[in-house]
Amino acid sequence: MTAASATPSAPNRSICILGLGLIGGSLMRALQIDGHRVFGYNRSAETVDAAIASGHDASTDLVSTLERAAVDDALLVLATPVTTIDELLTEVVAHAPNCLLTDVISVKRAVADAVARHAPGVRYVGGHPMAGTSRSGWSATDPDLFRDAMWMVSTEDGTDANDWSAVASLARAVGALVVPAAPDAHDRAVAAISHLPHLTAAATAAVGAGESELALRLAAGSFRDGTRVAATAPGLQRAMLEANRIALLNVLSETIDRLLAARDELRDNGTVEILVDDGHRSRLAYEAIAGSEPVPITGVTVGEPGWAQQLRRQAHQARVWLG
Amino acid sequence: MTAASATPSAPNRSICILGLGLIGGSLMRALQIDGHRVFGYNRSAETVDAAIASGHDASTDLVSTLERAAVDDALLVLATPVTTIDELLTEVVAHAPNCLLTDVISVKRAVADAVARHAPGVRYVGGHPMAGTSRSGWSATDPDLFRDAMWMVSTEDGTDANDWSAVASLARAVGALVVPAAPDAHDRAVAAISHLPHLTAAATAAVGAGESELALRLAAGSFRDGTRVAATAPGLQRAMLEANRIALLNVLSETIDRLLAARDELRDNGTVEILVDDGHRSRLAYEAIAGSEPVPITGVTVGEPGWAQQLRRQAHQARVWLG
Repeated sequence: MTAASATPSAPNRSICILGLGLIGGSLMRALQIDGHRVFGYNRSAETVDAAIASGHDASTDLVSTLERAAVDDALLVLATPVTTIDELLTEVVAHAPNCLLTDVISVKRAVADAVARHAPGVRYVGGHPMAGTSRSGWSATDPDLFRDAMWMVSTEDGTDANDWSAVASLARAVGALVVPAAPDAHDRAVAAISHLPHLTAAATAAVGAGESELALRLAAGSFRDGTRVAATAPGLQRAMLEANRIALLNVLSETIDRLLAARDELRDNGTVEILVDDGHRSRLAYEAIAGSEPVPITGVTVGEPGWAQQLRRQAHQARVWLG
Repeated sequence: MTAASATPSAPNRSICILGLGLIGGSLMRALQIDGHRVFGYNRSAETVDAAIASGHDASTDLVSTLERAAVDDALLVLATPVTTIDELLTEVVAHAPNCLLTDVISVKRAVADAVARHAPGVRYVGGHPMAGTSRSGWSATDPDLFRDAMWMVSTEDGTDANDWSAVASLARAVGALVVPAAPDAHDRAVAAISHLPHLTAAATAAVGAGESELALRLAAGSFRDGTRVAATAPGLQRAMLEANRIALLNVLSETIDRLLAARDELRDNGTVEILVDDGHRSRLAYEAIAGSEPVPITGVTVGEPGWAQQLRRQAHQARVWLG
């Protein structure tokens, strides 16, 4: 298949989603609204029943779902927690070994390693939509979840151009903007901007609740927003964070170093100037990127020599692929 | 004056606000809408011009504003950063020494000490509305800022009952709920739920921005919400945090200890279970308090023997005074 044949306006390949939680379920809803043929599997009957009741094509039978994907040459989307993928990959190899595989899991090195280990012959291009809420399950799904969200697509020198385009087109079909990156660069980035915030939120929440009920009574916007992600189901948080251990250790250590320096400055000199100034400058840098119209990647044709490297280089300047 | 005469429905004492930034300006707007006689002072002509243009009674002349407050027996509200109050208190003593004084500053021990030092004869009952945004200045003011917000009112064994009721009524007049507390208990509480979140937000923002532009491009909800307060003007953040040094040092050290323990667990055992579970449980405890209808303090008449202690005791169970 070519990139052009996978554009949203010409859906011709069905999509099979394994796991219908917040991300997988939202993707199913968004794709169906956009006119795609989409079907899926979920382990729990409760979720499958909810999906079927909403007019979707879902099953608790993994093998038959994969056999159908194989017949359809469907694009397989792995959308379960990273802790569950080894078993699923073994089933993919057994029942749909020729399907193109992508995923929506928040770490990319661990998934790529698992694919190489359990499904070495399967064509795989990883992905990660930067979207979520602290709620989970089918009832939290939202077909607009990916609208204008960033969707990282793994972009390595050996990535097949057609496969990459098919995965990028999936992201574009649901309104996301594509961020091409290498798996390791992705994992370092999300350790800093997604996984670390779970730990600082948890520590802030624990210190606040440990202080007093009076403190929780007085808590306002800074505590509410600063601890929001701590409400995410602990199992989901741990699956994400522990799968990105090395990168998370690095940014956690840097965070501790910054807080230790601030503590010493406050204790010895009565000031928090350095940390507050750094934080303010950094937040403004973020707002400048998040608050302005994304700059598109230009001058690259997917498949031309060096295309993956060129996409990655522009993505490192915060540009996005609009396909 | 009695508590009853200060209720919102019977405004009979004018209110003079010193400082017309986010909090003071929002208070001026809310009180005027509610039919109170309110006037104010601000150092910068720009803010005063904006307030006058919005139909408010404001001046850059501190002395004449205080002289007018003295004639009116106005309730004085100190609404400037804590770093500026020594000079203002000296002027209050010189020009309006008989007025009842309150404040809206985010630390209570430092303000009480400054009053004792610079304005020892002035009747003072401290206050702190738990409301704010990361924006500042007149353009950020909002007359609904205090609606359903918690407004701590200093409640000590020696507090005069009529003065306390007048300050509590001010909070009630703009839709806030009164949380009676001792200054030191307040300072410990806000160190945990308001000041600490500024430091964890700053560290998270700095680590994210230090990682890469790619990281800021991928940043989504957890980073956006977790770093929001880092956007607050650094001078305002420092004024708050540095005035609460001892309490902030305590909670900052506890936060560092929790993050260090999490780092060791992640490095040695590959898990973040303890911190994530503690954070999750704590966030749910917060949501249980913030998300339910506040329980009113009952069975206490302000002015009866032991009233202040009884109010504090119930506030420590997360109850509020609806007056």
